Amino acid sequence: MHKVIYDTDPGVDDAMALLFLHRHPEIDLLGITTVFGNASVETTTRNALFLKREWDIPCPVAKGASVTFDPSRHERPWPTFVHGHNGLGDIEVPATIDLPTDPRPAYQFIIDTVRANPGEVRLVAVGRMTNLALALKHDPDIVRLVKDVVIMGGSFYVPGNVSPVAEANIHGDPEAADVVMTAAWNVVVIGLDVTAITTMSRGYLADMAKIGGEDVQLLNELSQSYIDFYKHAVDDGMMVHDSCASAYIVGPELFTSIKGPVRVVCGGIADGQTIVKPDGKHFPPGDWDNLPSQTVCTGIQSEKVVDLIRDTILGGASR
Amino acid sequence: MHKVIYDTDPGVDDAMALLFLHRHPEIDLLGITTVFGNASVETTTRNALFLKREWDIPCPVAKGASVTFDPSRHERPWPTFVHGHNGLGDIEVPATIDLPTDPRPAYQFIIDTVRANPGEVRLVAVGRMTNLALALKHDPDIVRLVKDVVIMGGSFYVPGNVSPVAEANIHGDPEAADVVMTAAWNVVVIGLDVTAITTMSRGYLADMAKIGGEDVQLLNELSQSYIDFYKHAVDDGMMVHDSCASAYIVGPELFTSIKGPVRVVCGGIADGQTIVKPDGKHFPPGDWDNLPSQTVCTGIQSEKVVDLIRDTILGGASR
Ligand SMILES: [Ca+2]
Ligand SMILES: [Ca+2]
Repeated sequence: MHKVIYDTDPGVDDAMALLFLHRHPEIDLLGITTVFGNASVETTTRNALFLKREWDIPCPVAKGASVTFDPSRHERPWPTFVHGHNGLGDIEVPATIDLPTDPRPAYQFIIDTVRANPGEVRLVAVGRMTNLALALKHDPDIVRLVKDVVIMGGSFYVPGNVSPVAEANIHGDPEAADVVMTAAWNVVVIGLDVTAITTMSRGYLADMAKIGGEDVQLLNELSQSYIDFYKHAVDDGMMVHDSCASAYIVGPELFTSIKGPVRVVCGGIADGQTIVKPDGKHFPPGDWDNLPSQTVCTGIQSEKVVDLIRDTILGGASR
Repeated sequence: MHKVIYDTDPGVDDAMALLFLHRHPEIDLLGITTVFGNASVETTTRNALFLKREWDIPCPVAKGASVTFDPSRHERPWPTFVHGHNGLGDIEVPATIDLPTDPRPAYQFIIDTVRANPGEVRLVAVGRMTNLALALKHDPDIVRLVKDVVIMGGSFYVPGNVSPVAEANIHGDPEAADVVMTAAWNVVVIGLDVTAITTMSRGYLADMAKIGGEDVQLLNELSQSYIDFYKHAVDDGMMVHDSCASAYIVGPELFTSIKGPVRVVCGGIADGQTIVKPDGKHFPPGDWDNLPSQTVCTGIQSEKVVDLIRDTILGGASR
């Protein structure tokens, strides 16, 4: 069993990835930690509780960061044109959900859960990297105790989605992401190089909803305006960014990757850009020297990943 | 006829591009302007005079910049491991050449020559962009009078060669390159996306030298240590970076490109990176807004370009 903590800012594509993690028979979802990003942390936490209730997810929800790792960064408006004003495509969601959150802040929940399961926890982080950076700050020794960190974020040899070079999750807290990428644990970076070419069509999702019952119907409904948003880039469908990270947990063979230290640009016109120095490539002494080599995904078998998402959510995953 | 000013830091691949420009029957080489980069400007100017003398090139040589556009930048050591201690692969070159340089600095030579040939001059710039930025600073109106600016520099969707994201010509003077890219003239950017896959083998060049007489034998000799340097990346051959820019002057159909404003990162870990915002891609308001759209080459018919270089240098160009 893969023991997973899911760090997330639901978020439409976050919801699909959550249902994947909840339903995959080889994944033991230990907890959900929330972070600001697609909406305020109050909203993303409410959304996590809502999905937990609707989908009968047993694990706890711990509320996380509401501001960037470096609090002097200016806040930007929420991306309501992508995820709706309520973070879930503006479907009807109650203002409050009558379920408790874990009493600890997200970073402390991560630290405690990692320490209770030494060497076993896989962190799947699909929002800004703030909670992970805070966990490292409060307990640097967890780098030895985490199995790996699988993140959705960044872009390497393709354009960004919030600037010509920056992807939203990393751009939303570059200092946190740089802390996470340069720490001495195993990070797998699943960025736009692979997620932007991994799309699910409206019809494909509708077919899933037809046979998947209420849970998948909810997923279908909350995804509709997100699919509308993607009409500039996808032919009546959506990029399933966060689910690619979830799929990696059980299907790493569906990805190809390169290895090398990763840094994040903090400030300037390239703010939030992720940059890898591929191992074996030599440059004059510089900012990538003596840093741990991480795994950067550059290729994906998109159709197989999308089918894995469907099969898992519909309960027929054989993997 | 294409009226060309060649801005260069010879430099091994600069030498091949110079012989191309000198020999192509449809190119009228109006002048050579030198800049520091592969070696000091004293050395690159001496080398330009040496090649002018050896190859009987009639046009003037004007000496250019010796320091970056922003003089507060730290100087770095010359890349002697690439171009040799003398900038020409450490073949024997006299300490001084008994030929005069133009009395004007390079930027003034550019301004005067552009003004004398309004709408006709094509600037081929294959070193740091310092002279061009100085010309713009001293006479901003030349943007209306230059036909186009074809530069070898930058990298967009491939790694850099002096950092994971920066190419040497741009990295050598980022502020100057940002001035050149954002000015309201037509810039064609020929970077590592196309030049790093355009290689000439040692044997191919040797065959050229066999039938090309003394001039091509000289080119062959000065290229040998450069080919040795490239053994980490090329199978017994070399990237012909600067000649790609020369080839574009007469063979633009051998390239594919995208359009969009280009900025250069100045400072930080991405220092010297070139970033294009492709036209038609939308991002939140940012640093690429309201800038002129330039041409960024992303594809090249490498074999045809290399053959064009050979045919031109051997005097058989039919183009
Ligand atoms: Ca997310
Ligand atoms: Ca050069």
